[in-house]
Amino acid sequence: MTSKPQTTPASLATEELRGIDAYWRAANYLTVGQIYLLDNPLLREPLRLEHVKPRLLGHWGTSPGLNFIYSHLNRVIRQRDASIIYICGPGHGGPAMVANTYLEGTYSELNPDISLDEAGLRKLFRQFSFPGGIPSHAAPEVPGSINEGGELGYALSHAYGAAFDNPDLIVACVIGDGEAETGPLAAAWHSNKFLNAKEDGVVLPILHLNGYKIANPTVLARMPENELASLLIGYGHAPLFVEGDEPAVMHERMASVLDEAVQRIRAIQLEARGGGGRGQKGRPRWPMIVLRSPKGWTGPKEVDGQKTEGFWRSHQVPLAGLAADPDHLKLLEEWLQSYRPEELFQEDGSPIAEILATTPVGTRRMSGNPHANGGILRKTLVMPELAPHAIEIRQFGETKAEATRVMGGFLCAVMQANEAARNFRIVGPDETASNRLQDVFDVTDRAWMEEVLPEDTHLGPDGRVLEILSEHTCQGWLEGYLLTGRHGLFSCYEAFIHIVDSMFNQHAKWLDASRDIPWRRPVSSLNYLLTSHVWQQDHNGFSHQDPGFVDVALNKKADIVRVYFPPDANTLLCVTDHVLRTWDRINIIVAGKAPSWQWLSLDQARAHCEAGVGIWEWASSRGSGEPDVVMTCAGDVPTVETLAAVQILREHMPALNVRVINVVDLMTLQPREVHPHGLPDREFDALFTTDKPVIFAYHGYPWTIHRLTYRRTNHANFHVRGFNEEGTTTTPFDMTVLNGLDRYHLVLSVLDRTQAAKSRGAHLKQMMQERLLQHHDYIRARGEDMPEVRDWKWTTA
Amino acid sequence: MTSKPQTTPASLATEELRGIDAYWRAANYLTVGQIYLLDNPLLREPLRLEHVKPRLLGHWGTSPGLNFIYSHLNRVIRQRDASIIYICGPGHGGPAMVANTYLEGTYSELNPDISLDEAGLRKLFRQFSFPGGIPSHAAPEVPGSINEGGELGYALSHAYGAAFDNPDLIVACVIGDGEAETGPLAAAWHSNKFLNAKEDGVVLPILHLNGYKIANPTVLARMPENELASLLIGYGHAPLFVEGDEPAVMHERMASVLDEAVQRIRAIQLEARGGGGRGQKGRPRWPMIVLRSPKGWTGPKEVDGQKTEGFWRSHQVPLAGLAADPDHLKLLEEWLQSYRPEELFQEDGSPIAEILATTPVGTRRMSGNPHANGGILRKTLVMPELAPHAIEIRQFGETKAEATRVMGGFLCAVMQANEAARNFRIVGPDETASNRLQDVFDVTDRAWMEEVLPEDTHLGPDGRVLEILSEHTCQGWLEGYLLTGRHGLFSCYEAFIHIVDSMFNQHAKWLDASRDIPWRRPVSSLNYLLTSHVWQQDHNGFSHQDPGFVDVALNKKADIVRVYFPPDANTLLCVTDHVLRTWDRINIIVAGKAPSWQWLSLDQARAHCEAGVGIWEWASSRGSGEPDVVMTCAGDVPTVETLAAVQILREHMPALNVRVINVVDLMTLQPREVHPHGLPDREFDALFTTDKPVIFAYHGYPWTIHRLTYRRTNHANFHVRGFNEEGTTTTPFDMTVLNGLDRYHLVLSVLDRTQAAKSRGAHLKQMMQERLLQHHDYIRARGEDMPEVRDWKWTTA
Repeated sequence: MTSKPQTTPASLATEELRGIDAYWRAANYLTVGQIYLLDNPLLREPLRLEHVKPRLLGHWGTSPGLNFIYSHLNRVIRQRDASIIYICGPGHGGPAMVANTYLEGTYSELNPDISLDEAGLRKLFRQFSFPGGIPSHAAPEVPGSINEGGELGYALSHAYGAAFDNPDLIVACVIGDGEAETGPLAAAWHSNKFLNAKEDGVVLPILHLNGYKIANPTVLARMPENELASLLIGYGHAPLFVEGDEPAVMHERMASVLDEAVQRIRAIQLEARGGGGRGQKGRPRWPMIVLRSPKGWTGPKEVDGQKTEGFWRSHQVPLAGLAADPDHLKLLEEWLQSYRPEELFQEDGSPIAEILATTPVGTRRMSGNPHANGGILRKTLVMPELAPHAIEIRQFGETKAEATRVMGGFLCAVMQANEAARNFRIVGPDETASNRLQDVFDVTDRAWMEEVLPEDTHLGPDGRVLEILSEHTCQGWLEGYLLTGRHGLFSCYEAFIHIVDSMFNQHAKWLDASRDIPWRRPVSSLNYLLTSHVWQQDHNGFSHQDPGFVDVALNKKADIVRVYFPPDANTLLCVTDHVLRTWDRINIIVAGKAPSWQWLSLDQARAHCEAGVGIWEWASSRGSGEPDVVMTCAGDVPTVETLAAVQILREHMPALNVRVINVVDLMTLQPREVHPHGLPDREFDALFTTDKPVIFAYHGYPWTIHRLTYRRTNHANFHVRGFNEEGTTTTPFDMTVLNGLDRYHLVLSVLDRTQAAKSRGAHLKQMMQERLLQHHDYIRARGEDMPEVRDWKWTTA
Repeated sequence: MTSKPQTTPASLATEELRGIDAYWRAANYLTVGQIYLLDNPLLREPLRLEHVKPRLLGHWGTSPGLNFIYSHLNRVIRQRDASIIYICGPGHGGPAMVANTYLEGTYSELNPDISLDEAGLRKLFRQFSFPGGIPSHAAPEVPGSINEGGELGYALSHAYGAAFDNPDLIVACVIGDGEAETGPLAAAWHSNKFLNAKEDGVVLPILHLNGYKIANPTVLARMPENELASLLIGYGHAPLFVEGDEPAVMHERMASVLDEAVQRIRAIQLEARGGGGRGQKGRPRWPMIVLRSPKGWTGPKEVDGQKTEGFWRSHQVPLAGLAADPDHLKLLEEWLQSYRPEELFQEDGSPIAEILATTPVGTRRMSGNPHANGGILRKTLVMPELAPHAIEIRQFGETKAEATRVMGGFLCAVMQANEAARNFRIVGPDETASNRLQDVFDVTDRAWMEEVLPEDTHLGPDGRVLEILSEHTCQGWLEGYLLTGRHGLFSCYEAFIHIVDSMFNQHAKWLDASRDIPWRRPVSSLNYLLTSHVWQQDHNGFSHQDPGFVDVALNKKADIVRVYFPPDANTLLCVTDHVLRTWDRINIIVAGKAPSWQWLSLDQARAHCEAGVGIWEWASSRGSGEPDVVMTCAGDVPTVETLAAVQILREHMPALNVRVINVVDLMTLQPREVHPHGLPDREFDALFTTDKPVIFAYHGYPWTIHRLTYRRTNHANFHVRGFNEEGTTTTPFDMTVLNGLDRYHLVLSVLDRTQAAKSRGAHLKQMMQERLLQHHDYIRARGEDMPEVRDWKWTTA
């Protein structure tokens, strides 16, 4: 042991210790009951096979430790009237978390049929990991949870997300030693470099070393202890160790260490805050706890002659095959009886008063703390006017602007308007400025608790922009921030958002499951700005080119996900304004940062974004009747190339009736039955016709459009051009040529597919092919685009 | 400084130091030249604007440090005849890596037009980040690289992958302090717990702290130094520090520290290996180096009055806007002249002899080391016979087996057959046994260098199975292992493979780019077994259910990716046998681990896998002529449900002509023009008809099948059932019901879509609906499936 509490509080009063231990035994009993029992929940009769579930599912191993921690956090809350939430990293501890919230009464309040009596117990046990019941992890169904542990690695970043801007909150974050091996968890330790002792709450990490994963020891548990201590000190913490397996001793020790930890936290906060507080100066060394206890603690020591308690065999169901092996049934009964349920529950099945007395009440219960049901606390963001930030447009395509820079100006105003509420954050992997959102630094800094040097710019302890070169940590912080009732935006290079595919998936699932839970209040949407996108990688190459995140997103439940491709700055403003007002969604905005042509005035942009998709009459042919071809674009670069192609057609083939459609909201393409934004078939057919060629220039992979439209009447005539995985380091225009998305290829597509064009298209076709050759030669000779492309400008007919 | 070398080697001879410094200046000059110059490569005339590239792209900041390290590793190689490869974590250092490989001569040998003279220099400079030229990162085009740094985080896991089973190799791994903030990198530090000093090589991590990312300080560079040292010691290393900015002092110090590091490595290895070696006992404390040097070292100190050297402004192009600002052009010329090119290059433009004398020769050059072009060293895997592992099948659907357990037996034989070659590894996040591959532990252990307790099973220093609860680390290890010429398999829960989506993407890009590089030799394919799949999550719930990795994979260049859905154990054997023989591919195998019905004998399986898709005549109706309906299945669970549906139809609607098609190789569905495995349209039409309903039961998301088949003649009649994101904790059969993939829904689909069925289908339709209701009631009452489902068995007609 390398660090001991500096003060040792008086021993726990025997009575208090007895209450905590009774609580712990009850929680353990309820955990085992959920895994095993269909009936006979209080063992009022001898255990028989028919009382046991036919399929034994769930995870015991981590649960007793989780219950132990819970019972001691309850003590701290009662003693200090502290506001604490409990992040359960070991997601496999679902039954433990349910057990605790049941003992606190919250579970029954939210699910009245699961009452605090024998009938309720029976239902509680039965529903766990049972068809139509509840999942086995700390899912959204578990009151007090903002972290689903099913996929490991995100507990600590979620915890920090919850702690930011919640100065009175302590986020107790239990990290399993399996989870601690993951990359996202390992990166998140450094979150303490971004936590302000004055303005933020605090995270109390509790590293729970029970030694084993599914079938292996864990790295952190088997390291020499001095190395472990060195590691945790290196992460910036002062570790306090609680180690052993004798309950009475462990209770004393845990209570003492927890007191010590909370005292240290309060001392740090007092120094940073109080009348004599000095504000945040440097970074304090926050305490943390290492709890080393046996896996499957208090469970069967041996099963069939094999070590079980304190070993990986406790991971799931230590006793299985009860039907085949009566001894196992007997062992199960002994195990359950070892908690002495008759001492823990009253005649009606409710917990004894001594147990109830150990739990906090009302919103101080960790399962009832409103921070863990953030929608309760969520305040609508104050939204500034868009007009002062809009680009003035007198003619379509008259000026160039950097769309995300314009958005940055608006975000700066959002930041200001909500400064007092402290409920809006921007996160990103060191790309806020690179993504042209730097105007936000006019009103805030990047959060930074380490030393600030004279040459540093926009760094400070009060910064509201969080930047760390870990997309995982950014995503985890933002999820935790949103789930505790606040608002935010994640700006990221488009290609690298794939790094958080799996976190995105899990958050989408959380939102989906939460919709069916009446007591979960809506939380703000998770908003992504994906920029520095596939078509704008001047400084980088193939590794930075991947527009496929949208495809991952489209696999999730349609109503959760929205995908926007604003074609210019004013549409980006409207989309940004919209998404920041929404809840329970994941909004993906893809927009470029490079100077590009601007099309719509703010009013036009509003109308266009409202519709989500629409004909750009000003760019279309004036002829009446059905068009000969529908030129469709989604994305800023495809929009420019489409308009450039239209201009070529207008000049060289004026009789061709061209309709131009721009898609801002990708979801409009899906059938209405699949997505609420989907256009009804009649409207879709009116836009895209039922039989005319549709040349679709799309920002991402072409088959995405096919996937969305394959049920539409005219789908057979959709010809989609997009990113074909032809990536490299070159100019943005050359990128479009390599992938056949450029104006010349678009014109060639029109010529190939329209009757009207075929008759007079030979000359134009040859001209386009010549242009492509000229481009090829020019760019390889000079390294920049032909003047024809560089100087191109839309001319209103 | 917390740790100093224990021995200080004699000061470098002045001459040697002068040579190294000349080399370093030359490398720096070549780096700046690549970023800036189109012409006048040796500054033989005053620098004019037309000598400078019109678009200035690339990254200077990290490069001088990379060059510094390279020059000193060269010294160590020459002095000790060491075999060292260089992993460049800071991918932005592309121009530096190219510069070094050019000075070593390798670049010109592999690219004869880039000769070691003035003409070659001109081309070398011009091609960098230039259309049609080379990318800006350490991409596959860079000799000696096995790590593309474009997406940060994988340097260290790649390094360990390279070191495993290469006892003579030192993998010098430069980790940028930006990269060090990522999760995958943070997790990979613990790789040293899996490295055997006797049988493996070693990784020498060089943490390069230049202090800044794009626009921010880095976490590791600003931490107090004692905390940093504590962190690195906690990671299990003995850190040696080299810090400063005065070149002469830094050269001395770096040489001394590198000597110290290599001496310590050799001492550890000698103890583990030599005649007096004790074998691997416990885990040694490997040395590592912390190099703290200014960002943009030797570049412009200030630009426009703003600090540039030693600050983030050096990140990309410190001097820009040369056309607008003649002072910048002047500064650039002074910067280039500061390296005194006239002293470094001879009249013909080739480097002076003193520089050439500092580089190793032949395959000792880091850019020429065959380990970094692993295909050179790759030996074909010895493949055992499949027959001894096959399930005996006398009748279709006669027995049940766990497919992956059968595969495990075969992998055990593969492990044995290649034991002497030590070139086959299995990696996974603690799931090898959970995924039923545990037979491999009959012949090997899990690698483990920490203490082994008496109760531990299958743990040991010589284990060839690598398990850590970090999918990122598993993926990185395997990529490094394959790229250095070996073979392997990654077994993973299906849902959690999304964690490495982005790593998969980058590896696919690496393989794609490598195909166009003639000197890159083929490397073994990256093979995934995805199991514990969406339909088999008894112990878990929604969080563990996601079959969407295939969709990410399908976005990559078609020829790189293969996706297999073997329906039973013998087909899984054939697919496994096949993928282990392939190269330059990514093979994804999706197969269940639960006991399930077996269909094909080994011979039948071979024929079926060879075709990739085919009619199962034995399950189809015997009638001649075109079928009334085509029942298609891809995946093990969909196959069972399809056959159960066929059996119901056969019993209740014997006149209906049903064709059963099973798809093993998903790529056969795509057009031949898109994928080399794609069926020609005529063959596809012969199987799937041109006008009959196709009821397609698919393992994953239904739209994946639409995306693959939308160009096929009969696509409008494809009705696909698959995972609709209806996940929960329940029985596998109930999961199919919730998603409409079960036998009853399949029969209903047939009834809805066939004329033949419509006339007599009312009764059967009602029966199916009743079954669904019965299922619903039964499972919610009993928690297990109806006997009708549990006892179902295929009966041959």
